[in-house]
Amino acid sequence: MANVLRNSAKFGFSGVLSQLSIHSRHGRECVSPCFSLQQRNNSTSPKIKVDLDSSTGVAVLRMQSPPVNSLSLDFLTEFCINLEKLEMDRSCRGLIITSTLSKVFSAGLDIMEMYGKSPERCGEFWKAVQEMWLKLYGSNMATIAAINGSSPAGGCLMSIGCDYRIMVDNPRYSIGLNETQLGIVAPFWFKDTLVNTVGNRAAELSLELGLLYSAPDALKIGLVDQLVPEDQVLSTAQDTMSKWLAIPDHARQIDQCVYIIYNTSPLPLDHARQMDQCVISVCIYYI
Amino acid sequence: MANVLRNSAKFGFSGVLSQLSIHSRHGRECVSPCFSLQQRNNSTSPKIKVDLDSSTGVAVLRMQSPPVNSLSLDFLTEFCINLEKLEMDRSCRGLIITSTLSKVFSAGLDIMEMYGKSPERCGEFWKAVQEMWLKLYGSNMATIAAINGSSPAGGCLMSIGCDYRIMVDNPRYSIGLNETQLGIVAPFWFKDTLVNTVGNRAAELSLELGLLYSAPDALKIGLVDQLVPEDQVLSTAQDTMSKWLAIPDHARQIDQCVYIIYNTSPLPLDHARQMDQCVISVCIYYI
Amino acid sequence: MANVLRNSAKFGFSGVLSQLSIHSRHGRECVSPCFSLQQRNNSTSPKIKVDLDSSTGVAVLRMQSPPVNSLSLDFLTEFCINLEKLEMDRSCRGLIITSTLSKVFSAGLDIMEMYGKSPERCGEFWKAVQEMWLKLYGSNMATIAAINGSSPAGGCLMSIGCDYRIMVDNPRYSIGLNETQLGIVAPFWFKDTLVNTVGNRAAELSLELGLLYSAPDALKIGLVDQLVPEDQVLSTAQDTMSKWLAIPDHARQIDQCVYIIYNTSPLPLDHARQMDQCVISVCIYYI
Repeated sequence: MANVLRNSAKFGFSGVLSQLSIHSRHGRECVSPCFSLQQRNNSTSPKIKVDLDSSTGVAVLRMQSPPVNSLSLDFLTEFCINLEKLEMDRSCRGLIITSTLSKVFSAGLDIMEMYGKSPERCGEFWKAVQEMWLKLYGSNMATIAAINGSSPAGGCLMSIGCDYRIMVDNPRYSIGLNETQLGIVAPFWFKDTLVNTVGNRAAELSLELGLLYSAPDALKIGLVDQLVPEDQVLSTAQDTMSKWLAIPDHARQIDQCVYIIYNTSPLPLDHARQMDQCVISVCIYYI
Repeated sequence: MANVLRNSAKFGFSGVLSQLSIHSRHGRECVSPCFSLQQRNNSTSPKIKVDLDSSTGVAVLRMQSPPVNSLSLDFLTEFCINLEKLEMDRSCRGLIITSTLSKVFSAGLDIMEMYGKSPERCGEFWKAVQEMWLKLYGSNMATIAAINGSSPAGGCLMSIGCDYRIMVDNPRYSIGLNETQLGIVAPFWFKDTLVNTVGNRAAELSLELGLLYSAPDALKIGLVDQLVPEDQVLSTAQDTMSKWLAIPDHARQIDQCVYIIYNTSPLPLDHARQMDQCVISVCIYYI
Repeated sequence: MANVLRNSAKFGFSGVLSQLSIHSRHGRECVSPCFSLQQRNNSTSPKIKVDLDSSTGVAVLRMQSPPVNSLSLDFLTEFCINLEKLEMDRSCRGLIITSTLSKVFSAGLDIMEMYGKSPERCGEFWKAVQEMWLKLYGSNMATIAAINGSSPAGGCLMSIGCDYRIMVDNPRYSIGLNETQLGIVAPFWFKDTLVNTVGNRAAELSLELGLLYSAPDALKIGLVDQLVPEDQVLSTAQDTMSKWLAIPDHARQIDQCVYIIYNTSPLPLDHARQMDQCVISVCIYYI
């Protein structure tokens, strides 16, 4: 795995992050015309391709950054911009994330971004990682990871940031937060998300030993929800999405908010406050 | 399920709630003679029937409000008054809750109470729902739900508010917090109780998709503890109760308190403070 | 079980605890020469025997206090002193805890310490119990319990304070926090540790009913991680330890810290602050 990460993409800093207003989770009402326009064009880009089916309201986001969809600052920035566009597009209710590469979903954080960089640059990189997590985990869309290959470390974080995980039934594909094996500490919001997914003890063993799980083992501990043959992963994701979209958006979204606020202690304040407000309006009768 | 709920009882406001002093969880010492007297008579009422076996100290509370034991304000008020009487009766140590109706334990909250009502009335209704939960979940009695029929939404909340759940082994009976399917958001104390019962991930999927589980599936995720044939549900509950009552009351009760305080974040302050006091007296040696 | 406890060791107060500076979790840097010296000698003592293999960095701590390794104040004091020595010894990275007695790991707290004693003495005893738990649960070493016999109550607490549990595959050996059966309330940090190990619902049933689990049942609910034949428990512990020590110490230790701070609410303040500091230094990029 370490080798995979070391061989991964080494893209430089593109400066695109500056286009991203970090705390701009406006309601879905205030759609910027410019963003909408780009969205309607189903804008493509070197590292990520988004297709929105306006008849179903479901977007498929394909990661296509060879060799292993490393999460470089460049990649993350593009990912977040696309996510934000979809989030603000009223016609989009569901998001499926998958990979165009053979055998890999995402190899996780680009280790070169943490090697020999200035503290400022490191900070910028980690901010982008956290932003990806916040946008996914706090998304108003129903989100499904169609995991069609290995998904270690940051790739696993991206997966568990989604509402549901469908993985290819192939024991050679693995998934897990294996940071500890590389001597890196998984931040506590990685841990929170993993605990919320597989429970405390499995998460504890998993993080302290940096375990990677084969697809069948991942299903056993609940790290993924379902295994399917390789050629059915996307169609199953589409079928599952239609079940999620049968639930009234508002009820599902607020249920999610309640989860995130109470189950993840150390959320950045601005974000937590935004979510608190949406919950407070629901709870007015209950206290 | 929506149909079941829509066809459910539509009883008006009876005003009985005003007889209930909401924050009156006195210790079991200060039994009012009047309440005790009524208790000895095993008072019956249109919607709920209570039989206390003074030789075993076990009361059976039967819900008998056709067609589906809907939790109207009327029903909840009667339920809470009966619970409070038993709680204050020193001779009662255990409570079994069941239904006299065929095929249904309780269909949950009476949806008519939330439709076209004033905010004040809605507030009164939700206060009664919360009061039911507080009284059950915080009860000093050992409590067992003998679930002899379907138990969606509020019926499920009532069940998971008990210490133990025995359900009829019939796949046609279902249980779950399916509020989201109706576009209603389950309050966070519903969520807390469900998470405490089945763990976080199962609760998350369950709430966001509003899932109803057949009895066998409910056993699989731990939403109920045991399945038995229909004609054995009450006798099994009695047998199980004798195991619970073999434990010294004081130790079991304080263990429960510790649970409720630390596992359910948003308890109303008065209630939390009362329980804190009982814990503080235990913890005096440990800090 | 009550009988076992009543027949257990009745050692008086030895005054050794005063040699223990309760809040002295100095970093591993400031090793006192005196402690180091004793350590190098692999000091033995009546109740506990420690062997440190300097080639592997793994210490084996053997409890050898007949008849049942009761946790008296004496025993706990000796246990904590040994733990502290190992903790401060840079050459020791892993600790295996086991028993030299036949059929019993540890019968738990010495009940005579809680019977007819002054509040001051009780306080001293409970402080020592908590100190054992803090030292184990917060240890920088990888810790494995090689459970070669029954392990009720405090013996179970000692086991779940370790990172990993290997038990003899013998249904006659049992483990569990059965305090409630004796009318004693398990303190909330017992509960926290159990919930972290087996999840909330299993812990709740377990504590409220004071359940003891046979080895196979303990494996089923996750109270132990692995069962092996009696003659392989120590060798398996050694093999497992080498896997834990393959992980960079620093990453594993901080992962543990993150766990303890966020998952155990009521830690004594001094201890929590020390751990907070180590986490804050890691999290500097993430907030």
